[in-house]
Amino acid sequence: MNPYQLILKKRNGGEHTPEEIRELVLGFANDQGIETYQMAAWLMAVWFKGMTVPELSALTQAMVDSGDQIDLSSLPGVKVDKHSTGGVGDTTTLILAPLAAAAGATVAKMSGRGLGHTGGTLDKLESVPGLRTDLTSQQFLDQVRQIGVAVISQTGNLVPADGKMYSLRDVTATVDSIPLIASSVMSKKIACGAEVILLDVKYGRGAFMENLADARELARRMVDLGKALGRRVRAVISDMDQPLGTMIGNALEVQEAIEILRNERPGSALEVVSVELAAHLLEMAGISENLDRARVRVRELIQNGEGLRKLGEMFRAQGGDPRVVEDTSLLPQAPIIEPVLSPSAGFVTGIHAQQIGFAGTALGAGRKRKGDPIDPAVGIIMEHRVGDEVKAGQPLAVVHARDRQTLTEARQILLDSIAIGPDRPASRKLIEEIVE
Amino acid sequence: MNPYQLILKKRNGGEHTPEEIRELVLGFANDQGIETYQMAAWLMAVWFKGMTVPELSALTQAMVDSGDQIDLSSLPGVKVDKHSTGGVGDTTTLILAPLAAAAGATVAKMSGRGLGHTGGTLDKLESVPGLRTDLTSQQFLDQVRQIGVAVISQTGNLVPADGKMYSLRDVTATVDSIPLIASSVMSKKIACGAEVILLDVKYGRGAFMENLADARELARRMVDLGKALGRRVRAVISDMDQPLGTMIGNALEVQEAIEILRNERPGSALEVVSVELAAHLLEMAGISENLDRARVRVRELIQNGEGLRKLGEMFRAQGGDPRVVEDTSLLPQAPIIEPVLSPSAGFVTGIHAQQIGFAGTALGAGRKRKGDPIDPAVGIIMEHRVGDEVKAGQPLAVVHARDRQTLTEARQILLDSIAIGPDRPASRKLIEEIVE
Repeated sequence: MNPYQLILKKRNGGEHTPEEIRELVLGFANDQGIETYQMAAWLMAVWFKGMTVPELSALTQAMVDSGDQIDLSSLPGVKVDKHSTGGVGDTTTLILAPLAAAAGATVAKMSGRGLGHTGGTLDKLESVPGLRTDLTSQQFLDQVRQIGVAVISQTGNLVPADGKMYSLRDVTATVDSIPLIASSVMSKKIACGAEVILLDVKYGRGAFMENLADARELARRMVDLGKALGRRVRAVISDMDQPLGTMIGNALEVQEAIEILRNERPGSALEVVSVELAAHLLEMAGISENLDRARVRVRELIQNGEGLRKLGEMFRAQGGDPRVVEDTSLLPQAPIIEPVLSPSAGFVTGIHAQQIGFAGTALGAGRKRKGDPIDPAVGIIMEHRVGDEVKAGQPLAVVHARDRQTLTEARQILLDSIAIGPDRPASRKLIEEIVE
Repeated sequence: MNPYQLILKKRNGGEHTPEEIRELVLGFANDQGIETYQMAAWLMAVWFKGMTVPELSALTQAMVDSGDQIDLSSLPGVKVDKHSTGGVGDTTTLILAPLAAAAGATVAKMSGRGLGHTGGTLDKLESVPGLRTDLTSQQFLDQVRQIGVAVISQTGNLVPADGKMYSLRDVTATVDSIPLIASSVMSKKIACGAEVILLDVKYGRGAFMENLADARELARRMVDLGKALGRRVRAVISDMDQPLGTMIGNALEVQEAIEILRNERPGSALEVVSVELAAHLLEMAGISENLDRARVRVRELIQNGEGLRKLGEMFRAQGGDPRVVEDTSLLPQAPIIEPVLSPSAGFVTGIHAQQIGFAGTALGAGRKRKGDPIDPAVGIIMEHRVGDEVKAGQPLAVVHARDRQTLTEARQILLDSIAIGPDRPASRKLIEEIVE
């Protein structure tokens, strides 16, 4: 089929054969026969008409085949990976990666950078003095073989077709297509080589999926896709209406992860979700025989400090200062630290996660555009969660800023995005459901 | 709005403001801010979501404004134009243009070339020895002022935005969108400057619109659009399931037009439709006070030879040999002329107009791709219309070919596309309805 016929078929609601999908994806990725404007028209047709599971499997496999794949087969143990659809104060990777490794799972993980209101694990990690995330494939595999865990930036030419398609979707209003999101995420996870993939699908005002129905559909799509391509996959749907962690920023989020691994924040939302995700990984990997046992095991690894030790090992292996896990004051510190006080008394009825993320970006903790520099030291510490009672004049948050201008900007955004009302709001579950 | 937001708005079913439409169309036409892939995505969104009448008026006006416009205001009389959505054996322009001019209308007409299975008036005209269609604007206006009629190829830079958008639609499966077709046709007609525009919307297997409902919608859209932009507009919906004329080809269609203007084919389908279209033009232009009087007037101009004389004047004015109207053997002649015989007896139950057009293209009368050369001499003369009774061995058609290979090819297509059956089929009206 020529490109015209392929577009026509999708536009008219037809189902592509796997060969047709390969022709489209690889033709586009390799500049062979599929023009950018034709891919744009096809993507818009997909936005309207969707894709079937076989189409989506073929799309994902073709994207994987467009570039290199990480071969983890030489590593011992069960290779596990986790992916979050992104959020604010979403520091789970820094907590569950060392915990899972400490429990015996093999965590060879590639992460991303922050963009817009969402943070990125690489940016957070690089706030540890000396730490590098740009390991070669060989360094990466060697580190995982030695200590069971590494979290690095993408190495090699992974899924170039996805990169090229995503850039095009980004300028043609075709990003928010659940099948296209599903295949984009899963192609990267598949190319990274893990056997067990846990998906953390966020929903709410700070998430890519604002409502539960969309989050459910995305989770369902990704799980089906992973299974069709031979992986053990599960998705957790979790709340991202308010920030998950107390701290938003880069060094600040590393600090919170360390505090949780030191068992200093038992029962906090970030701890609860991180423990739950780690437990799913251990159970899926067959390291714990069921979820309850897995939860007990993960808590033990927090209590006995083995998770913290593993994080320190990882910092050291990647060139970072391992003393940070004992002394978080070694992390970059912002020169200005000031509270934002509540203008009124009442209950916190909502904390708009996306806006809090933008407040962080205003401070310099995040990026407006790809490639922008970030400031590792700045950020926000939230003093309350939704449902808390506050008095007028009490701190709602503490801002860590580089200068007074950004402080003022962030303060205003914070005041606008933390709602105080007379009635205690209904609470949302931290983890809404499991899709498998 | 940036291009992303414009695409998003249409995709989500929003209605563009006229300013947004201008931004899109002129930005794309002038390479200012709208990338080709963004226009492709927007066009696909339009394919799915359609356009309102105000959007369509703005689109059409913006396309007109993207280039030059023909100013006919210096010419006397009412300036009339006719547009056919294209078909096979559709020679009406060569008949009605001289008839309308002979009746006193001002016919300053720009026509197109053939593509695929459809013929083009310019190709047909250029089969007259010496005739040129590439007049300058001044020559064009002078000729119309002197003899009341000229049919030429596009002069000046008319609706470049439409040209650019059409080329893109052609490779992104977004051609068959009724609003986009309507604005493409009407922008060209508006830019050509006529006050009265008659649209001949064909439907059937040889037409762009295969079914009546689509033809009706297109007619409705174009008429509304023309009125919104201040023109007198009417549409005729006519049959193009079988070829309209008896002859298909370039010189052959000129010959048939001449024969009709000589009153040698009274009552033939092509004559009936041409007279009807000419009558509508005269009535719309206010030259005849009603349609019945207009019909009488047009028939008079055939009977008294004034239409034929006007055609000869036009040939001469454009450099062509005027003796052709008296002696059609001066037109190019094909070296091989052979009949295609009916393999069986019965009634002609269908003649697939598009396939007959492809048979003409196989002979060299049409183009597979823009810019291909054509052979003016070759073509097909149909010996029957749907409903005729035929005996086995009787000629169904006569092929005028350049060589035996193309003859064989055309013969096979003709045999495959003329259906013979035991029962007389129901007849279709030549003119189905009027939309105004």
